[in-house]
Amino acid sequence: MSFFQVLCHNRNCKARTGKIITSRSEISTPVFLPIGTLGSVKAISNSDLESIGYNIFLANTYHLYLRPGVEILHNAGGIHKFINWQYSILTDSGGFQIYSLATLRKFDSDGIKFNSHIDGSTHFFTPEDIIEIQRIIGSDIIMPLDVCSEYPVSHSEAETALNITHNWEKRCLERFKSNRIKYESKQFLFSINQGSVFKDLRRRSIEELNELDFDGNAIGGLAVGEDNDIMYEVIDFCTDILPVNKPRYLMGVGTPENILNAIELGIDMFDCVIPTRNARHGRLYSFFGEINIKSSKNKLKFDLLDAGFNSSVLNNYSLSYLRHLFFSNEPLAMRFATIHNLEFYFEFMKRIRKSIEEDNFQEFKKEFLNNYRNNKFT
Amino acid sequence: MSFFQVLCHNRNCKARTGKIITSRSEISTPVFLPIGTLGSVKAISNSDLESIGYNIFLANTYHLYLRPGVEILHNAGGIHKFINWQYSILTDSGGFQIYSLATLRKFDSDGIKFNSHIDGSTHFFTPEDIIEIQRIIGSDIIMPLDVCSEYPVSHSEAETALNITHNWEKRCLERFKSNRIKYESKQFLFSINQGSVFKDLRRRSIEELNELDFDGNAIGGLAVGEDNDIMYEVIDFCTDILPVNKPRYLMGVGTPENILNAIELGIDMFDCVIPTRNARHGRLYSFFGEINIKSSKNKLKFDLLDAGFNSSVLNNYSLSYLRHLFFSNEPLAMRFATIHNLEFYFEFMKRIRKSIEEDNFQEFKKEFLNNYRNNKFT
Repeated sequence: MSFFQVLCHNRNCKARTGKIITSRSEISTPVFLPIGTLGSVKAISNSDLESIGYNIFLANTYHLYLRPGVEILHNAGGIHKFINWQYSILTDSGGFQIYSLATLRKFDSDGIKFNSHIDGSTHFFTPEDIIEIQRIIGSDIIMPLDVCSEYPVSHSEAETALNITHNWEKRCLERFKSNRIKYESKQFLFSINQGSVFKDLRRRSIEELNELDFDGNAIGGLAVGEDNDIMYEVIDFCTDILPVNKPRYLMGVGTPENILNAIELGIDMFDCVIPTRNARHGRLYSFFGEINIKSSKNKLKFDLLDAGFNSSVLNNYSLSYLRHLFFSNEPLAMRFATIHNLEFYFEFMKRIRKSIEEDNFQEFKKEFLNNYRNNKFT
Repeated sequence: MSFFQVLCHNRNCKARTGKIITSRSEISTPVFLPIGTLGSVKAISNSDLESIGYNIFLANTYHLYLRPGVEILHNAGGIHKFINWQYSILTDSGGFQIYSLATLRKFDSDGIKFNSHIDGSTHFFTPEDIIEIQRIIGSDIIMPLDVCSEYPVSHSEAETALNITHNWEKRCLERFKSNRIKYESKQFLFSINQGSVFKDLRRRSIEELNELDFDGNAIGGLAVGEDNDIMYEVIDFCTDILPVNKPRYLMGVGTPENILNAIELGIDMFDCVIPTRNARHGRLYSFFGEINIKSSKNKLKFDLLDAGFNSSVLNNYSLSYLRHLFFSNEPLAMRFATIHNLEFYFEFMKRIRKSIEEDNFQEFKKEFLNNYRNNKFT
């Protein structure tokens, strides 16, 4: 059984459905991965995640390395046993987190030195370390160490970063080929192409990485501050030259609108903190626009709300009650909002896949955005 | 069907089982009420509470009056509809909270003036207000306004407080008899006897309140700093003169040991914050002693732990993982620990009732305390 297969192509655009098969789950694509940095999605349990229907989420190598640390993960027999989760996990390498969280970081061609954002302790990661750590974590899909350029960045700086990234990814792949899994399950290694918004660099990056034997391909370094139109242009350019028979993963994206546009351009995988982070700030997604739980307009809204899908939260609790939970700082507020938003994203992706199968993705997109923008809750 | 009936008496002590019947649940006694101050137990949902088996919890009039406030509760059609909970709720009057949380409080014979602990706003509660507010809340068992003396207190101060309390409780009962329920369900009003640790005052309090037509009787003003032995002596004294055919409620108690001793002395109802508060600090209860999740000894404890009962949490998650959740400040840590501790308290009360039915409560108590004190986890 191959790791990835494309199942349907939409006729008038690059949207496609497919299936990723790991030792632990069959993942229908396009897929959205919730963020469970330390092994659980904030404010909910892994059984909540399973109940919604998710069979993969994203955890983070940098964070897990610092806490609980490799000693515990190794002794536990890997992250799945540690957290009691039987489905797939993708671990990001942590390159991006080192850039955004750690302090006093210094990188040279050999690796990255940084201080922990938790206790200030000094650490050094080589590309090989990142593979070894992910072997210990035992995640199903793993990512190589890359250099994340800021935006905007000059062409020459982006090129220097790209050169280091390529060198690191090759070293990651070599180590990945030469060392072995620690537990029973096979792992899959993706590439991450970089090059900021420069098409010549993206082309070089993708072409060089295509020569190597990665299981899937991620587009890194987007959604870091550039305009959406520029992001879409780069995605469009990348998916034209990325191989068809490997999954394409757009890291760190995004809003429902971002996801629709990227799927239209041929993306298969997404991860993003926004449904869960927005939930914790009282913002709910729905098929009729976003809902601000905390709004004073919800004070006396006792009727159950139709969010355009079967929300286990809004089917049982009024906006007035959810607002009360938020203003009372009850942890339950975040749990309910997180479950609701992840139910929305799950249903949203399911409807997208169905529309591609029925060859009417673009009609779906148009109708969705029309309802979504004409927010009936504002 | 009467509100309360005694079912079994233990032969060699005052322990007894019984049944409280409200419009919403049949509650087996002795019973422990979890604390859901604002309508939900901190860190868990009401469906979690229902899954464990609870069919009553305690909410607080003072807190609900301030947030969400009577306007919202009235418009929602009462607290049960607002929070989507179909079983019973007992509301404390809030007298104790006004003493422990509110600022600038002043009481005279007519009522209490206080400033909100949330925004400093000034409020005034008469005994009648407390009944009216609980009519709007729509809780199943309601409590009158009382004056809570500190400990230690002089005999004359305790007597003054008692006089005011009796006057207030009579006014509460008059208002309760003259006004009507706001929704469909019948409400039941308890008395609260006071008198600190002075037996003559407790006797006077109980005898005077016994003349009046309350549905149950609470012992107030204990577990406020006095030694356990003194508390047990006062309980023993009170239960000798409290009527047999009404439920006896020891407010704000307690630890498993406190509960066993109080049941032996004839108490039927308890509420206490300790299982849920301790959970949030990483302390778990078990039939083999308490467990400190955060202990470094748990770092590599991956085997599932036997807590002497069927814990949905410890059956699925290791101490090492729970410790990781606590140190990572994941909200899930508090949820898991809260569910575990409430499962423990539920099972503990169930075993106590069974031992009374089988007339071996004192053997159960001895064996429990023996296992519990010889903590196998330390």
